[in-house]
Amino acid sequence: MTAHPRLSLNQATTKNWTLEQAVRGCSAAGVGGIGLWRDRVAEVGAKRAAAIVADAGLTVTSLCRGGFLTAPTAAARQAAIAENQRAIDEAAALGPTELVLVVGGLPDGRRDLAGARAMVAEALAELVPYARAAGVRLALEPMHPMFCADRGVLSTLGQAIDMAAQFAPDEVGVCVDTYHVWWDPDLPAQLARCADRLALFQVADWVVPLAPDALLSRGHLGDGCVDITALSSAVHQHGYDGWVEVEIFRREVWDAPGEATLARVISSFDQLVAPTVPIAPLDHGLPAR
Amino acid sequence: MTAHPRLSLNQATTKNWTLEQAVRGCSAAGVGGIGLWRDRVAEVGAKRAAAIVADAGLTVTSLCRGGFLTAPTAAARQAAIAENQRAIDEAAALGPTELVLVVGGLPDGRRDLAGARAMVAEALAELVPYARAAGVRLALEPMHPMFCADRGVLSTLGQAIDMAAQFAPDEVGVCVDTYHVWWDPDLPAQLARCADRLALFQVADWVVPLAPDALLSRGHLGDGCVDITALSSAVHQHGYDGWVEVEIFRREVWDAPGEATLARVISSFDQLVAPTVPIAPLDHGLPAR
Repeated sequence: MTAHPRLSLNQATTKNWTLEQAVRGCSAAGVGGIGLWRDRVAEVGAKRAAAIVADAGLTVTSLCRGGFLTAPTAAARQAAIAENQRAIDEAAALGPTELVLVVGGLPDGRRDLAGARAMVAEALAELVPYARAAGVRLALEPMHPMFCADRGVLSTLGQAIDMAAQFAPDEVGVCVDTYHVWWDPDLPAQLARCADRLALFQVADWVVPLAPDALLSRGHLGDGCVDITALSSAVHQHGYDGWVEVEIFRREVWDAPGEATLARVISSFDQLVAPTVPIAPLDHGLPAR
Repeated sequence: MTAHPRLSLNQATTKNWTLEQAVRGCSAAGVGGIGLWRDRVAEVGAKRAAAIVADAGLTVTSLCRGGFLTAPTAAARQAAIAENQRAIDEAAALGPTELVLVVGGLPDGRRDLAGARAMVAEALAELVPYARAAGVRLALEPMHPMFCADRGVLSTLGQAIDMAAQFAPDEVGVCVDTYHVWWDPDLPAQLARCADRLALFQVADWVVPLAPDALLSRGHLGDGCVDITALSSAVHQHGYDGWVEVEIFRREVWDAPGEATLARVISSFDQLVAPTVPIAPLDHGLPAR
């Protein structure tokens, strides 16, 4: 099996695989990139995880995830900062690679959305010097507005770019995930605005009806209603030359054997994403970061 | 029991009540406005419905709903136009009152979101002369982005205003529903832009976790995380002087006796909305339309 040279498997897609199993699966399938999750990294430790990935000749394309920076008390916010510093340390050990930030929802019992958004900006300012010293770029991920209350108060790409713009492009970027942003009427303009802030492009489809747990409504590319090809085309036309991670949370996908899931990821990527990825100009044989 | 003079009950909130029961309930509770749904109107006919409401001294504050203008074939789109003309006739018989439009999602099997949005604009252009002749204003309702695929491709207030702006303010307005728009970082600017396009203000809270059917995640004012008071205050500060409809889709609310639901609507409105409504300037004793 050969996979497209820019395809990266976000390991949440094969949720039941350990890090080692996922690396072995990617290796066997010819997938060159893998996006890691902290819980699976923690099972072996960041140093060992880095070695497992490197020994297989793979590249870590991101670490998911830091964030959850909104909290009702100063003490809880400081605890979140400390937790994110540990995540930055792990991202440094793993490459370094980008650390994806899901910024957090409204603090429990609060309704002050503007205040929660300001809280994120404040925490980010505290984290950036630490990340800079570690050589890790933070990637703000705008979340679908249905997660605004309980997961991420950054609701649009434009808002994420505005917040990132307070820092240098190699310090804070944005992560564009088709599942979160596909609906946005302002998306074309904001994709044009991303430039070198675009730290990571993730793809997944939006499947209706929504799953009873809305978080699990993602689907394989082509199974839903997102024009993956058009979005990937726009992202690449604006100069993105990094990895493309396939990240799917869905019960049926998780229940399938990892190998079958990965095979479907590879074939749907070939069909819907590959035609939009200009790989010729790269001269170093590996996707740019 | 007395209710705030600008409070209107959207009859979807007391889903199990017939139109006659809802009117009787409002009358007994001192609620002066009622937002009607077409299915309940159809049970008695628009003419009889208008008489029932008028006999009780109530005002119809909106008719829900027209729309669903996106369809994969020209024939289906023409059928949708015809259906909306019938809805306009009903709205004319009922006041006239505003006809709320839920514009429709992606046509079955399609992924062309921009195309679907263009389809709505086209259908709207076809409907406006008919509505104008009937004396009915159409109110575009931006839907929460989680409904973009299957219910409404108008995803933000800004987008709805842009589309309405192709027509006169008394021909096409917008309907602002807190449940659909509360997350939008651009909301304050767009509320300021609404001006006389704001045809209807609806309120409901956003309750987490989302219900297994996401459509039913609305809650009584105060039960969720939306700052209803702040949004209502912004709407009224920008000059809105119409009715405020409480519209809640939620299994537990529907399972409660209508009288109890209405009592809760009245008390939460008094607490969270009433303080933001400047009623003094009105000189005709009834809310302006």
